[in-house]
Amino acid sequence: MLKPDFAKSADGLIPVVVQDYKSGDVLMLAYINKQAWDITLDTQYATYWSRSRNQLWKKGESSGNLQRIIDIYLDCDRDTVLFKVDQIGGAACHTGYKSCFFTKLGVDGVEVIEGQKMFDPDKVYKK
Amino acid sequence: MLKPDFAKSADGLIPVVVQDYKSGDVLMLAYINKQAWDITLDTQYATYWSRSRNQLWKKGESSGNLQRIIDIYLDCDRDTVLFKVDQIGGAACHTGYKSCFFTKLGVDGVEVIEGQKMFDPDKVYKK
Repeated sequence: MLKPDFAKSADGLIPVVVQDYKSGDVLMLAYINKQAWDITLDTQYATYWSRSRNQLWKKGESSGNLQRIIDIYLDCDRDTVLFKVDQIGGAACHTGYKSCFFTKLGVDGVEVIEGQKMFDPDKVYKK
Repeated sequence: MLKPDFAKSADGLIPVVVQDYKSGDVLMLAYINKQAWDITLDTQYATYWSRSRNQLWKKGESSGNLQRIIDIYLDCDRDTVLFKVDQIGGAACHTGYKSCFFTKLGVDGVEVIEGQKMFDPDKVYKK
């Protein structure tokens, strides 16, 4: 059974590149441990390990913007994973942008914002 | 000047998702420190930090398969980078495949090899 080599990382966390299966856009980078991997396979929706909250994190649990798994790839070293996902709601980033990579390095290091907000985070993440 | 927040990582290393600027294929994941970032910007060819060799690593130095920088993006947290590159030689992986993510998780966890080898590593990496 093909699976990441979690022992390769000191903290048991493996990075996951998350890509929109239709557009090919790279949406975000997240981390999984063995438990998050198992839950993702069982449910076919992406579950990660939140390093800031130190807990399992079903992506989209608060916002509704779940990530349905289309395909899973492992890299040649088995220490990085690629999820191709159907991004529910059309936006992966907690800021409301489609992709977390909405900031481009412009000429002379100037910040260039690309893309547009798909939702208002103040409305989606109600306190 | 826009740059990654290297202080966010205990070892000063920031992951870089590397994507083919034309096909949108995710080619590999690598890591940079501040020095590798500076060299990449100066030369406009990707230089990483090799965690296995513990040294700077100009991608393609041995194989000739350099990565010319087309665009650089930072994520919302400034702790992950996306390089869109022109992959010289058409292959990023040291195994000879175009992408390091050539292994797909098939039904029941069976390993499915996708894509084809672009070069023979035994010929390219001569001892």
